[in-house]
Amino acid sequence: MSTSVIILAAGKGTRMRSSLPKVLQPLAGRPLLGHVIETAKKLNAKNIITIFGHGGNLVQQAFAQENVQWVEQAEQLGTGHAVKVTLPVLPTDGVSLILSGDVPCISQDTLEKLLAVSRETGIGLVTLTLADATGYGRIVRENNKIQAIVEHKDASDAQRQIKEINTGIYCVSNAKLHQWLPKLSNNNAQGEYYLTDIVAMAIADGLEVSSVEPERAFEVEGVNDRIQLAALEREFQAYQAKLLMQQGVHIIDPSRFDLRGKLTVGQDVRIDINVIIEGNCELGDNVEIGAGCVIKNSKIASGTKVQPYSIFDNAVVGEDTQIGPFARLRPGAKLANEVHIGNFVEVKNSTIGLGSKANHFTYLGDAEVGAGSNIGAGTITCNYDGANKFKTIIGDSAFIGSNSSLVAPVSIGNGATVGAGSVITRDVAENSLAFERSKQVAKENYQRPQKLKK
Amino acid sequence: MSTSVIILAAGKGTRMRSSLPKVLQPLAGRPLLGHVIETAKKLNAKNIITIFGHGGNLVQQAFAQENVQWVEQAEQLGTGHAVKVTLPVLPTDGVSLILSGDVPCISQDTLEKLLAVSRETGIGLVTLTLADATGYGRIVRENNKIQAIVEHKDASDAQRQIKEINTGIYCVSNAKLHQWLPKLSNNNAQGEYYLTDIVAMAIADGLEVSSVEPERAFEVEGVNDRIQLAALEREFQAYQAKLLMQQGVHIIDPSRFDLRGKLTVGQDVRIDINVIIEGNCELGDNVEIGAGCVIKNSKIASGTKVQPYSIFDNAVVGEDTQIGPFARLRPGAKLANEVHIGNFVEVKNSTIGLGSKANHFTYLGDAEVGAGSNIGAGTITCNYDGANKFKTIIGDSAFIGSNSSLVAPVSIGNGATVGAGSVITRDVAENSLAFERSKQVAKENYQRPQKLKK
Amino acid sequence: MSTSVIILAAGKGTRMRSSLPKVLQPLAGRPLLGHVIETAKKLNAKNIITIFGHGGNLVQQAFAQENVQWVEQAEQLGTGHAVKVTLPVLPTDGVSLILSGDVPCISQDTLEKLLAVSRETGIGLVTLTLADATGYGRIVRENNKIQAIVEHKDASDAQRQIKEINTGIYCVSNAKLHQWLPKLSNNNAQGEYYLTDIVAMAIADGLEVSSVEPERAFEVEGVNDRIQLAALEREFQAYQAKLLMQQGVHIIDPSRFDLRGKLTVGQDVRIDINVIIEGNCELGDNVEIGAGCVIKNSKIASGTKVQPYSIFDNAVVGEDTQIGPFARLRPGAKLANEVHIGNFVEVKNSTIGLGSKANHFTYLGDAEVGAGSNIGAGTITCNYDGANKFKTIIGDSAFIGSNSSLVAPVSIGNGATVGAGSVITRDVAENSLAFERSKQVAKENYQRPQKLKK
Repeated sequence: MSTSVIILAAGKGTRMRSSLPKVLQPLAGRPLLGHVIETAKKLNAKNIITIFGHGGNLVQQAFAQENVQWVEQAEQLGTGHAVKVTLPVLPTDGVSLILSGDVPCISQDTLEKLLAVSRETGIGLVTLTLADATGYGRIVRENNKIQAIVEHKDASDAQRQIKEINTGIYCVSNAKLHQWLPKLSNNNAQGEYYLTDIVAMAIADGLEVSSVEPERAFEVEGVNDRIQLAALEREFQAYQAKLLMQQGVHIIDPSRFDLRGKLTVGQDVRIDINVIIEGNCELGDNVEIGAGCVIKNSKIASGTKVQPYSIFDNAVVGEDTQIGPFARLRPGAKLANEVHIGNFVEVKNSTIGLGSKANHFTYLGDAEVGAGSNIGAGTITCNYDGANKFKTIIGDSAFIGSNSSLVAPVSIGNGATVGAGSVITRDVAENSLAFERSKQVAKENYQRPQKLKK
Repeated sequence: MSTSVIILAAGKGTRMRSSLPKVLQPLAGRPLLGHVIETAKKLNAKNIITIFGHGGNLVQQAFAQENVQWVEQAEQLGTGHAVKVTLPVLPTDGVSLILSGDVPCISQDTLEKLLAVSRETGIGLVTLTLADATGYGRIVRENNKIQAIVEHKDASDAQRQIKEINTGIYCVSNAKLHQWLPKLSNNNAQGEYYLTDIVAMAIADGLEVSSVEPERAFEVEGVNDRIQLAALEREFQAYQAKLLMQQGVHIIDPSRFDLRGKLTVGQDVRIDINVIIEGNCELGDNVEIGAGCVIKNSKIASGTKVQPYSIFDNAVVGEDTQIGPFARLRPGAKLANEVHIGNFVEVKNSTIGLGSKANHFTYLGDAEVGAGSNIGAGTITCNYDGANKFKTIIGDSAFIGSNSSLVAPVSIGNGATVGAGSVITRDVAENSLAFERSKQVAKENYQRPQKLKK
Repeated sequence: MSTSVIILAAGKGTRMRSSLPKVLQPLAGRPLLGHVIETAKKLNAKNIITIFGHGGNLVQQAFAQENVQWVEQAEQLGTGHAVKVTLPVLPTDGVSLILSGDVPCISQDTLEKLLAVSRETGIGLVTLTLADATGYGRIVRENNKIQAIVEHKDASDAQRQIKEINTGIYCVSNAKLHQWLPKLSNNNAQGEYYLTDIVAMAIADGLEVSSVEPERAFEVEGVNDRIQLAALEREFQAYQAKLLMQQGVHIIDPSRFDLRGKLTVGQDVRIDINVIIEGNCELGDNVEIGAGCVIKNSKIASGTKVQPYSIFDNAVVGEDTQIGPFARLRPGAKLANEVHIGNFVEVKNSTIGLGSKANHFTYLGDAEVGAGSNIGAGTITCNYDGANKFKTIIGDSAFIGSNSSLVAPVSIGNGATVGAGSVITRDVAENSLAFERSKQVAKENYQRPQKLKK
C-alpha cells in the first residue's frame, strides 16, 4: 500500500516577527520544512504533497531541488481546509501521513510505527503524554480505545485530568480522506475547518483509531515563535550530541555543541567546547577538534589535531596534520598527511603536500605546494592582479623565507630557497636561491622623529 | 505627588571577597547600583538619595555623572538606621521608594505598580511567593490584609507554611517615614534598627499595607556572594534574550548570549552562539553575527554578515558589508556599504569607502580609503613613527599589492597601483604604478644551511 | 594504623566505544584513574595498589611516574575477585580503602570520614541517599544499623522503598580482607565474585558496618559511557567553579568555565565566558581574562588584562600587561610588566622587557627584547634557516618599522631604528637607523591588467 505525505506549510508565523515564512526558519541550520521533507524522503513516500500559502514563492524556491508536489491554500481556513485542498492530487488508495512543516523533529521511527498501526485501522494519530496537559486537546479513551478528542476549552473537569494529548500528526487512509474531508464543517467559534474532526467521523463510522507515542517528546513540538525555536534547537542539539556520544565521540560539553548537518566519525574523536559542525563532515579516528572551531563540509583524516578557533570550509585534510590555532581553511584547501598549518594562516584553493608547513601569518591562495616544504612566516601568494587570479607552484623541499611575496603566476622549484622579504616575480629554479633585496644601510646617531606640537 | 527613591548602598559585601564595594560589582557589565539608579531615573523620581558607607568614595566616583544625592551612613546599624540618615534631606511630602543597591533587577513596571497601590494607603511593599520560603520573613495575612511580617526564626509552625515573603522593597509616605523612623528601636538580638518594623507601626496606626508581586522572581533577588552574582547574571541574561526573541531576533542559543548594555535591532537579525554585545549597539535588518563575536558600542547596517570571532569596538559599519572571520574593528572604524574586511584584518580610526576590500592580514590605521579599492594581503599602514601618528589616504579604485608598507603621511591617488612588497614613502599619483623593489637575484645550486652540531 | 588504597582499574569500558581503557578516559583533562590516585596521595596512603586488566600496559605507562603498586587481574571475575588478587601484596595489618578507577570524584574529605568511622568497626562503606534509588543495591538498616545490602532485583517491595544505596566504596581492615576474600563464592547467576558479599560476612561475624555519605552526590558517580562522562564533567566543573567563586573569583558564567588542572588566584580576578584553564595556572590580583581564552601552565601577574581569544601555553606574564585579542603566547614567552601584545601576535621562547609593545601581526620567536621598544606591525623574527634556530636580540627603546624581517642571528642596539619593510641581516648599532630599501619608482598612466578571456 503506497504512502503519501501531506505537509501543512501555509502558515505565516506572525509571532516569529520575520519576513521569512515560518517553515523556512532554520533549525540546526536547515529550514523547518526541510527537516520534515527529509524525514518524508526516508519513508520512501510515493509523493510528498506540500501545502503552501504565505510566502509560497520563497518556500517553493527553497525546495526547488526536491521532488515535492505543491498545492496552494490561498486562504487559511484551518487545518482541515488545508488538507482538503490536496484532494485533487491525492491518490484514492494508499494512506497519507499528515505532518506539519513547523513540527520539524518528528522521527522516521515514530512515523513508521504510526504507519504500521494505522494501515489496519484506516486512521491513527501520534499522541503524547504530558505531566501538564493544560491547553491541549485531550485523548479520551474507554477500555483503552480512543473515544474522542476534546479541546481543552470544551473539556470537563474529569477530562482535563487526562494527560494524553493530540499532537496533530495523523495517518489516514486516502479513501477515507476523500470521503471525510468534503464533509468537514466550519460551524464553530473560529469559523475554521478542523482536521481533528475526522477523528470523530472515523469513530462515527465505527473505525478504531490507532495511536502511537513518540520516543522523544520534542518530536512533536511545534514552533510558533523565536523562543520555541531556540528551545527546540537545544533539544534537537542535545539529542544529536547524545547519538554521537553513543557512537563513542568524546564531546566535552554536549550543551555547547552544535551540529548543523551530518557528522560521520571514526573512533575516539574528541570535540572540545563550542565547536560548530555544518553541512557534511567526516572526522577520522583520534581526530581532536579544539574549542570554538567551526567545521563546514570538510573531511579530516585520522590523527589530525585541530587547535582552538580554527575555521574549515570545504577543506580536505590528511592524516596526522596539525592545524591552528586561528587557522582558516577555505574552499579547495587540500592538505596531505602530516601537514602543519599554524596560527593566522589562510589557505584557499590550494593543495599542500606531505609534511609541508606554513606555521605563521601566511596566505596560500591558488597554490600548489609539494612535500616537505617550509613556508616562512608572513609569506603571501599574490594570486590576484586586480583582474585575474593566477597560480603559485612550490615544489618539494622548498624553503620560502619569511615575509616573502610570491607574485603569481610563479613557480618555485624543488629544493629552492627564497630569501626573507623577497618579492618573487620570476620562476625560481630547482635547488637555487632566489632573493630580492637591497643593501642594508646604516645611519649612525640617527635623530628620531620628535613629538610634534599641536 | 512627587516620588523620591532611596537606595541602600552602604554594605561592604564581605562575602564577595573583593576590594570593590558590593554595589559596584558588575551585573551584565554595569555596577549593581547602576541598574537601580537607571530604573530610578525611568520613574522620573524627583530625587534619588543613595546611602553610601563602605567604599563610599569609589561608589560616588562611579556615579559622579548621575544626578544622585549622597547621604553617608557612617556606621552600619541596620536597614532602618540607613533610611533614617536620609531624613534630613528627605522631603516631608510625597512618597519614597526604598530600594537596595544589591537588588539590581527590580523593574520599572513593578515599582510603578507599587507606587500606584501605595499612594493610597501610605505604605506598600513588594512581596514574593516562593515554593520554599525557608529562612525568609513571612507575610502574615488575615482576610487577605497584611497583619505582620514575621521573621523565620520567630515564626510559628503555621506561619512557616506561609509562602509569601517580604523582599525588603518598600514604598512609604515621606510624612510617615519622618514620623516612624525616629521611633525605630534597636532593642533586639542583633542590636540593629530594622526597617521592617515600620510595617508594624503602620498597622498599629491603622493603615492598610499594600503589596504587589513582581512579574519575575529574579527582580527581587539580592546579591551577597559571587555565586549569587553569577546566578543572577544568567537569569538577567535569559530575560534579556527572551525580550529580544520576542522582538524577532533569532538567537541560536539564549543561554550562550550576553548583552551588557542595550541592543537595538531590525528585522530578522540572527545571532549565533557565544556572542557578547556591550554598550549601545544597533543591528539593522538581516544582520548576521557569527559565533563568538564581541560587539561593543557599534552600529551595523542592514544586510551585513559578520563571520565568527570578529571584534567590534566603536565601529560604524554600512549595509551589506562582509566582515571576518577574525576581523577587528577598533574605535573610529567607519565602513561604507559593501565593504569587505577579511580574516586577521585590523581597522582603527579609518574610513573605508563603498565596496573597498581588505581581505587578509591588513592593518589600516588612521587611513582614508576611497571606493572600490583593493588592499592586498599583508598591507600595513605605517601610521606611527615612534612619536606621532599620520594619515594614509588611498583614493578610489586603487590597488595596493600584497605585503606593502604605506609610510604615512602618504597619499595613493585614484586608480593608482602599488606593486607587491613595496615600501611607499612618497605620494603616488592617480592612475600611476608605484613600486619599490630590487632586482630578483638567483644563485644556482645553492647550498642550504646545515644542521649545526651542538 | 597504616592505610592502603586499592583501586579497581581493570575494566574495559566497552560502552565508551574507545580504544583507550576506561580509566584513561579524561575528566577535566586528567584520566579518571589519575583523579583517584591524586586523592589517594592526599590521604598519605602507605601504598596504592592498582588492579589492572584491559589495556594494562597503557594504564601502567600513563602512571609510570606515580608510586603505584600494580597487580594484574588477568580475568575479570568480579569486584571481589579483583580485590582478592591484591592479597599477596596487601599488608596484614592496617586498613584498605577500596576505590574504583572509574569513580573519579570521590573526595579526600569523604574518605577521611570513612576512614575515621571504619577504623573502629573494621568495615565501613560510603552510602548515598537518592530520590529515586531504582536499580541500585539498597542499604537495609534496623535501629539505624546496617543489616544487609540487597540488590534491586532481590529486594522486596518494602526494601525497594529504601533510598539509601551502596556506592561500592569501602574501607576494610586488611586482616578481615585476608580472612573474608578467600571465602567469596561465585555461586550466583553471573558467576562472579562480588565484593559486596564481605558486608554479609562482617555482619555474620558480628561486626557493625559503619557508613558515611559524601557531601556531594557526584563524588560517587561512576562513568560507563560518554554520556555519563560528559555529565560528570559538567558536575565536576560546576563544583570547581563554585570553589573559585567562594574564593572571590568573578566567573561570568560558571556553566561556561572549564578548569582542567589547578588554578591559583589573587583577589578580584574576573573570568569571562568560555575560558579554559589547563595545567597549573596562577592569576594575580585584578587579572581579567577575556572571553574564549585558553590559558595553560601559565602565570599572569596582577593587573594584567587579557582580551578575548588569546591563547597562553607555558607563558609568564608580568603585571599590568595588555594582551590580545587574538594573541598567542607559546612556551617560553616571558613578558615583563606593562608589556603590550596585540592582535594576531605570536610570541615563542622570547623575553620582552618592561613596557615594550608588539601590537599587530608580529612573530617573535627566540627573541630577547629590551624595555620600551616598539615592534611595528608585521615584524617577523626569521629565527629558522631551515636547519637551525637563531636568536634575535633587540635592545631597549628600539623602534622596528612595520613589515620588517629580522634575520637571526641578529642584534638591534639600544635606541636603534629599523625602517619599515627592511630585511635586516646585519647587526644594527645603538641609536642608528638601519634600512634596506630600493628607490620608489613611479610609472604614470599605468595600464592595469585586464580580465583575461577564458
